[in-house]
Amino acid sequence: MLTRIDHVGIACHSLDSTIDFYRRTYGFEVAHVEVNEEQGVREAMLRVNGTDDGGASYLQLLEPIREDSPVAAFLARKGEGVHHIAFGTPDVAAEAGSVAENGVRVLDAEPRRGTMGSTITFLHPKDCGGVLTELVQAAGDDEQAGAPDA
Amino acid sequence: MLTRIDHVGIACHSLDSTIDFYRRTYGFEVAHVEVNEEQGVREAMLRVNGTDDGGASYLQLLEPIREDSPVAAFLARKGEGVHHIAFGTPDVAAEAGSVAENGVRVLDAEPRRGTMGSTITFLHPKDCGGVLTELVQAAGDDEQAGAPDA
Repeated sequence: MLTRIDHVGIACHSLDSTIDFYRRTYGFEVAHVEVNEEQGVREAMLRVNGTDDGGASYLQLLEPIREDSPVAAFLARKGEGVHHIAFGTPDVAAEAGSVAENGVRVLDAEPRRGTMGSTITFLHPKDCGGVLTELVQAAGDDEQAGAPDA
Repeated sequence: MLTRIDHVGIACHSLDSTIDFYRRTYGFEVAHVEVNEEQGVREAMLRVNGTDDGGASYLQLLEPIREDSPVAAFLARKGEGVHHIAFGTPDVAAEAGSVAENGVRVLDAEPRRGTMGSTITFLHPKDCGGVLTELVQAAGDDEQAGAPDA
């Protein structure tokens, strides 16, 4: 079950200037910044609103930190803009299994670490109407499920 | 003030088959379907979650009904995928004014009718880091503001 739009991921050349744009133009504040070495990005989460499943919806700004990262390849091909949509779920592994049964390719054999301690997986955009789609289980939901790394 | 991610707009070739994909894969149900003749689209709103401003977040699926519509041009240029992000606000005219003062081009001189009786305006993607951005005032918020057409 997907219970919220967790975030919209936006690829940018400069994280700092894009954060500045969203703060200055709309008043969105940074809730979190981290580097994800595995994905080759520096990323910021800007909280937009709370959601009725107890979570929140964010914008996720993504700046590549090396040229061989997927986000760098996206920027080279398409330029700045929306990179993916992420839906929140209380159980990412179960949801990935359910989605796979419906013929959608799940890109991570095992769910992996996402931003803010979350557990995530990506779905193939060609199976999702051109939308790179991410499933996210928040860190709090990890703890409830008794995951050892949460 | 922007108080929620109102929707993510997704361009598709077939509204019916894309609705079917989202229902079958994730269980999202259609809250509303309409034709917007002015924009040349048939569109469906799929409700994902409620938001803490009393509104909700949706996916908006957009199918062009004529070849000279902006969504048809988008599909020809980029293929299916995310078309825009929309943020909810209690006062779209005030928000458009504030955004314009920050140097962002507002594409509609006057806010116009959006889906489900909303009032909307679009912002120039080149001023928004490559993201076609929409501001949305829901129909209920129109009534609160005493707009004569609400």
